[in-house]
Amino acid sequence: MNILITAGGTSESIDSVRHIANYSTGRLGGIIANKFASKNSTVTYLHGSGAILPSAENANYIKKIPISNTRELLQKLENLLTNHKYDCVIHSMAVSDFTPQAISSLEDIIASVVSRLHHGKANHDADLATLVKEAILSAGHPPTDSKLSSNNENMMILLKQTPKAIKLIKALQPNTQLVGFKLLSHATKTELYQAATNLLTQNACDYVLANDLSQISGDTHKAILINKSGHTRTAQTKQEIAEIIYKAVTEESQ
Amino acid sequence: MNILITAGGTSESIDSVRHIANYSTGRLGGIIANKFASKNSTVTYLHGSGAILPSAENANYIKKIPISNTRELLQKLENLLTNHKYDCVIHSMAVSDFTPQAISSLEDIIASVVSRLHHGKANHDADLATLVKEAILSAGHPPTDSKLSSNNENMMILLKQTPKAIKLIKALQPNTQLVGFKLLSHATKTELYQAATNLLTQNACDYVLANDLSQISGDTHKAILINKSGHTRTAQTKQEIAEIIYKAVTEESQ
Repeated sequence: MNILITAGGTSESIDSVRHIANYSTGRLGGIIANKFASKNSTVTYLHGSGAILPSAENANYIKKIPISNTRELLQKLENLLTNHKYDCVIHSMAVSDFTPQAISSLEDIIASVVSRLHHGKANHDADLATLVKEAILSAGHPPTDSKLSSNNENMMILLKQTPKAIKLIKALQPNTQLVGFKLLSHATKTELYQAATNLLTQNACDYVLANDLSQISGDTHKAILINKSGHTRTAQTKQEIAEIIYKAVTEESQ
Repeated sequence: MNILITAGGTSESIDSVRHIANYSTGRLGGIIANKFASKNSTVTYLHGSGAILPSAENANYIKKIPISNTRELLQKLENLLTNHKYDCVIHSMAVSDFTPQAISSLEDIIASVVSRLHHGKANHDADLATLVKEAILSAGHPPTDSKLSSNNENMMILLKQTPKAIKLIKALQPNTQLVGFKLLSHATKTELYQAATNLLTQNACDYVLANDLSQISGDTHKAILINKSGHTRTAQTKQEIAEIIYKAVTEESQ
């Protein structure tokens, strides 16, 4: 099989020394890559630049491609999905939902709001809200390659949503098997199942691996793999997660 | 000699999966630790949890203590400086100048401002600025151990300044030799020299290692070590930086 795995986390620059990153280590993605490589699958491993890499003994089967931020991820993903055919895409990367749009001192934002309120006209609350919104969105400067001064007591980072990388996958390869990942924090079983089902339908996933931060520690990594018909498999460790994903997608493709 | 070295970077949580981190790898701090350990100095190595560590052959001389954020750094630093005497403190850690104070959706901030403007009284611009400031500071919620929802188009992170860890050092050990670090980005030589001199006087450093991001790549790491009388030594690589720091502080202590 020809497999594409995304793993690790993205990193979005605030300035030349600071960034918003993800605690994801890429360890799970690496274990999944090893599982497929050990069964002679060819693996393309698209990973965050700080991610833990799959073990060396499988090097012949695994092509590693590093990316840093969501913009780079989208470019590489589009390029790979346009030029290669994958039997399965396992999208385990923790992709940042947000990226810095502007950095301001609190004073700059206040000045911008005060100035707009002076010059704008607000006949009712909706106008007022629009003035305030425009003032906030126009303050500050975009992330740059210079270093922010630390002289301000407060700074503000305005974040904007990033495009959803997962949407690209079935759009470019409708016939690949897609495994999506849903990570929640302190969710109930019902909430987790619901969130996984939403991801499954919204992004045309064939499977979703649902897990919760509160159930991941050391070797323990509880997870549920849900398929389109609502059938589930469970795992207690990262190794077992790799096993149930391998089993699911190879049974499917037989 | 008994040496305390701080190295790597701090990481400030936004929520349970995101954090603001620093690109600092700790490689320079590790090389400095190795230099001192190879000369039989006892080194306490206080490092960011993701930092590159000094090499294993010097393990007997180096005690490693990991920290994650600035709060932990300040606690450990205070504890170490209160209970141990160091001949020299080499503060190479990239300490975050800011930490998240509140996370909000843009809509929440706008609603908070509109509501304050309604209920508050602003007779002149200063009042208006105060109302807006209070509105922004009261919006959102503190960083939590749950995961932010990604349903908002824009989010805002309000950052507050962290206490300067470097100020603790001479306050608690006036007789130690303190080596501070100043990293700028695309600064002129004059700007870099000026910033280093400011750090030297403001924090009672004995030496400041001044360097610029644009002059660090691969093995090249240009830097200037400045002492209190304005005397300078220069280095072209991380290894040379370790040499000139070692020379400077051992000559001093003879």
